[in-house]
Amino acid sequence: MATYSLGIDYGTNSVRALVVNTANGAEVGEAVVHYPSGADGILLASHDHNLARQSPEDYLKCLAQVVQAALRQARAQAGVRARDVIGIGVDTTGSTPIPVDERNQPMCRQRQFRKNLNAYAWLWKDHTAFEEAARITALAKKMRPHFLRKCGGVYSSEWYWAKLWHCLKVAPDLFAATQAWLELEDYIPAVLCGVKTPAEVVRGVCAAGHKAMYNRRWGGYPDTAFLAKLDPRLARLRQRMNTKALAIDHKAGRLSPEWAAALGLPDGLSVAVGAFDAHLGAVGAGVKPGTLVKIIGTSTCDIMVARNTGAVPDIPGVCGIVEGSVLPGYVGIEAGQSAVGDIFRWFVTNVCQGHDALQVKLTAEARRLRPGASGLLALDWNNGNRTILVDPQLTGLMVGQTLHTTRAEIYRALLEATAFGALTIINRIEEYGVRIKRVVCCGGIAEKNELFMQIYADVLNRPMTISRSAQTCALGAAIAGALAGGAYPRIEPAIAAMTGVKAKVYSPLPRHVAIYRKLYQQYKVLHDAFGGVAGSATMAKVMKDLLVLKQKVS
Amino acid sequence: MATYSLGIDYGTNSVRALVVNTANGAEVGEAVVHYPSGADGILLASHDHNLARQSPEDYLKCLAQVVQAALRQARAQAGVRARDVIGIGVDTTGSTPIPVDERNQPMCRQRQFRKNLNAYAWLWKDHTAFEEAARITALAKKMRPHFLRKCGGVYSSEWYWAKLWHCLKVAPDLFAATQAWLELEDYIPAVLCGVKTPAEVVRGVCAAGHKAMYNRRWGGYPDTAFLAKLDPRLARLRQRMNTKALAIDHKAGRLSPEWAAALGLPDGLSVAVGAFDAHLGAVGAGVKPGTLVKIIGTSTCDIMVARNTGAVPDIPGVCGIVEGSVLPGYVGIEAGQSAVGDIFRWFVTNVCQGHDALQVKLTAEARRLRPGASGLLALDWNNGNRTILVDPQLTGLMVGQTLHTTRAEIYRALLEATAFGALTIINRIEEYGVRIKRVVCCGGIAEKNELFMQIYADVLNRPMTISRSAQTCALGAAIAGALAGGAYPRIEPAIAAMTGVKAKVYSPLPRHVAIYRKLYQQYKVLHDAFGGVAGSATMAKVMKDLLVLKQKVS
Repeated sequence: MATYSLGIDYGTNSVRALVVNTANGAEVGEAVVHYPSGADGILLASHDHNLARQSPEDYLKCLAQVVQAALRQARAQAGVRARDVIGIGVDTTGSTPIPVDERNQPMCRQRQFRKNLNAYAWLWKDHTAFEEAARITALAKKMRPHFLRKCGGVYSSEWYWAKLWHCLKVAPDLFAATQAWLELEDYIPAVLCGVKTPAEVVRGVCAAGHKAMYNRRWGGYPDTAFLAKLDPRLARLRQRMNTKALAIDHKAGRLSPEWAAALGLPDGLSVAVGAFDAHLGAVGAGVKPGTLVKIIGTSTCDIMVARNTGAVPDIPGVCGIVEGSVLPGYVGIEAGQSAVGDIFRWFVTNVCQGHDALQVKLTAEARRLRPGASGLLALDWNNGNRTILVDPQLTGLMVGQTLHTTRAEIYRALLEATAFGALTIINRIEEYGVRIKRVVCCGGIAEKNELFMQIYADVLNRPMTISRSAQTCALGAAIAGALAGGAYPRIEPAIAAMTGVKAKVYSPLPRHVAIYRKLYQQYKVLHDAFGGVAGSATMAKVMKDLLVLKQKVS
Repeated sequence: MATYSLGIDYGTNSVRALVVNTANGAEVGEAVVHYPSGADGILLASHDHNLARQSPEDYLKCLAQVVQAALRQARAQAGVRARDVIGIGVDTTGSTPIPVDERNQPMCRQRQFRKNLNAYAWLWKDHTAFEEAARITALAKKMRPHFLRKCGGVYSSEWYWAKLWHCLKVAPDLFAATQAWLELEDYIPAVLCGVKTPAEVVRGVCAAGHKAMYNRRWGGYPDTAFLAKLDPRLARLRQRMNTKALAIDHKAGRLSPEWAAALGLPDGLSVAVGAFDAHLGAVGAGVKPGTLVKIIGTSTCDIMVARNTGAVPDIPGVCGIVEGSVLPGYVGIEAGQSAVGDIFRWFVTNVCQGHDALQVKLTAEARRLRPGASGLLALDWNNGNRTILVDPQLTGLMVGQTLHTTRAEIYRALLEATAFGALTIINRIEEYGVRIKRVVCCGGIAEKNELFMQIYADVLNRPMTISRSAQTCALGAAIAGALAGGAYPRIEPAIAAMTGVKAKVYSPLPRHVAIYRKLYQQYKVLHDAFGGVAGSATMAKVMKDLLVLKQKVS
């Protein structure tokens, strides 16, 4: 008798539910529901373009709807009945903290805070806390340098403590009335399980470790002495937080009768601890030691795991290194590039003023070009550099233009630039003892753009494959659900059985590898010079001074 | 009674004749005739894209036609009769040497050489002699370093001795049968005057000084000991060359009865010594000490003069410094940018795939942008750098791109880049004691593109004006003709009377000047680093290695 697992995937604009066969990963039911509020699900403020919030009520309103729809499809397509479902897993965006009261209710439900956007969910891409982030980085550098070594050396404005501190400053009354701040990845499982108080909420180590400086080796979340230096009220909040965050092989609880009824599922179903979309996406793509999972979209998220021998060192410039954040028993490593698809889109849309059809045409033309033949070389920094320079204040660069340079050559140079950026991340991680033997890609670009995949194979000099599932995040959540439901004793066999890659493998062409090796040497020279890594700071200063001038005259 | 002068202007694709009132420069008759042979007047070879020749017969066939047409118009418009014309001046492209026999006949007229392209005129943009040029530079560096100091430090493949030597190598029989090699600027006046032997041809100092390493201070053309080191046959040719080259205040001779009949002009008319188009163009634009004349087209030619006090030093990286090459009694200084209009055209045509209308639109959009606000900065080296780096093997660069960068911002950054290139030339020349107080521009871009002019005014921090005449080269030739015909005792009053600028002056806006001063500092850092001027050669090596790789894989 086949059993099924339910994966629930909270994205930036919509929530997806996926019903998956626990034996083989077959996806038999799927639904998507878009958040009804704001602009494409995001609450914005005209006075502050850094602000991006979401309605927790949207999350819950859509939940029953999306699960019911997916179950209906699973029943129609594969005869799946409610009792065939054995577990639920959840992944979400993050860091997306939600202020809640002592009954786990979002603060925005209280009448006096209903019009206060600070009482809603602070979406991952909210950047209002940029000043607080900089001050947290500065204090940690002085007082707790080890905090920063696990998160690339810089604490981000997108992250948990910066957001909480910013709320404390701009809405002290709200902050005072708030009992706890729950990451969306923890909030949803807690809701499903009917958890009544914040103290009982199981926190996932993924959000805690990557965004809230949680590490069990230093006693969990940052210590109160450190937080008190930011603000004593943060330290008092910290005292109310449970000190253990768990990996996805733990249960957040069991499905409450109320939510069982709402979803049309048996009550008491096991609900796995939540995690971030990218991390469960890596699970759905078959992550394991030696495999890099690249989730490629407008930007990329790179996820790897290393056996937890205690030997994984700090890796300078890598966004996050967290025990158990991807797979229990392994160290999860997260890196990323600030812009990949966005750069190609920028060139096609802004510069060439074309659309999808032009991108297809340019791809076909660029495919006929030989590596190195254009004489062009670019830096992929149009949106800054996330890994390994961790500097959003960097910009793009292109060199080698002649009077004969074509737009297809420029387009290809931009593809190559992002591949060189990807290689820089891999090289940095390998320098610190984590080997990468193959790459599994997820996302539309990987599925649609063969030139992109071949260039990456040639530049990275590693076989490139594409995840079999087009919904790796939801599939990863379903794998966590299968584990919670007891379909597997450990996650490794679940991944082996439920994930896979497509048949087509992009293998490096030795002729191209040799040329790209030379081009990469030049890329690295530009990277280090303009990124401020090299001895002389002259070139880096040019890039920075241009930005200073731009801000001054704008 | 008004008198008139005839200017004859041999361009790359056509010849122009202009009838000018000697009292005020009024242009009363004008005609253009395109050379009939080859591709747009140029003889090409499918096996060698460096080759560019012209038919001397084209030059003569078009001559009677164009002069008669201009005279007809002058008669119709201003009642000009043949006897009202008092002199003729000639400007041509160059270095464009023509091999001739002992009767001054082009070698291509001899039956055995009729199919040999080496027996035709070697057009200025013929680059077949690139190896010979490099060897001439190398030998001069070792043996006669002062030769190079007057021509920017590098002898070009476009120039006289490189072309002759190449011919000697690839067509030794032809070279042996050739009595002399005449620059087009000297050949045309000699033809008009019926000069019977090469020894009697008056050579102009403009071509001799800028292209053939002629300098009266070292005895004229290069010495035979030097040339013999290249090839003894070049030394023997040198022995047949008269040792004095003259400025345009000298006469090449008097119009022969045959050509007088052909042109419809009185015989015995004075014909001035010829000069290059850019140099007589500067005359037609009103060049004088303190004034830089910029002839702006696909590339630019910058012409200045300095009083001949013997104090004008060598200026490193400046193409040519020749006594009398522009004005008698002054040192002529020639500089230039390898690509100006060509860069804008490349961006509009190759990258944006638009036409003139798009360029107009981009110009309008770019005009609304503030200096510095795009954060972009470019190097104007898409076609190498003529002055001050004298390196055709350089390429373009752009830095500062974001995901929001627009094509109008890129277009403006390219305009600015060429202005920064122009400022670099001015700064270099001023460092050596030649002051530039104002700039007079010629060419379609200056006349049509107000944004271009304002950016140049702001970057150069000098008033920018536009030559009154749209045909400054032909007007300059006519001024030489007026001088030869005795309308003026010296050239200065002729220029004062016959040239002028348009009323519109582009004045620097102090607010923009301040911003561009900062941007130029960054430009200079990139310029020196990638141009190999700065201490470290790292960045320059990146640019060079990309070209090496490009050539290798192509």
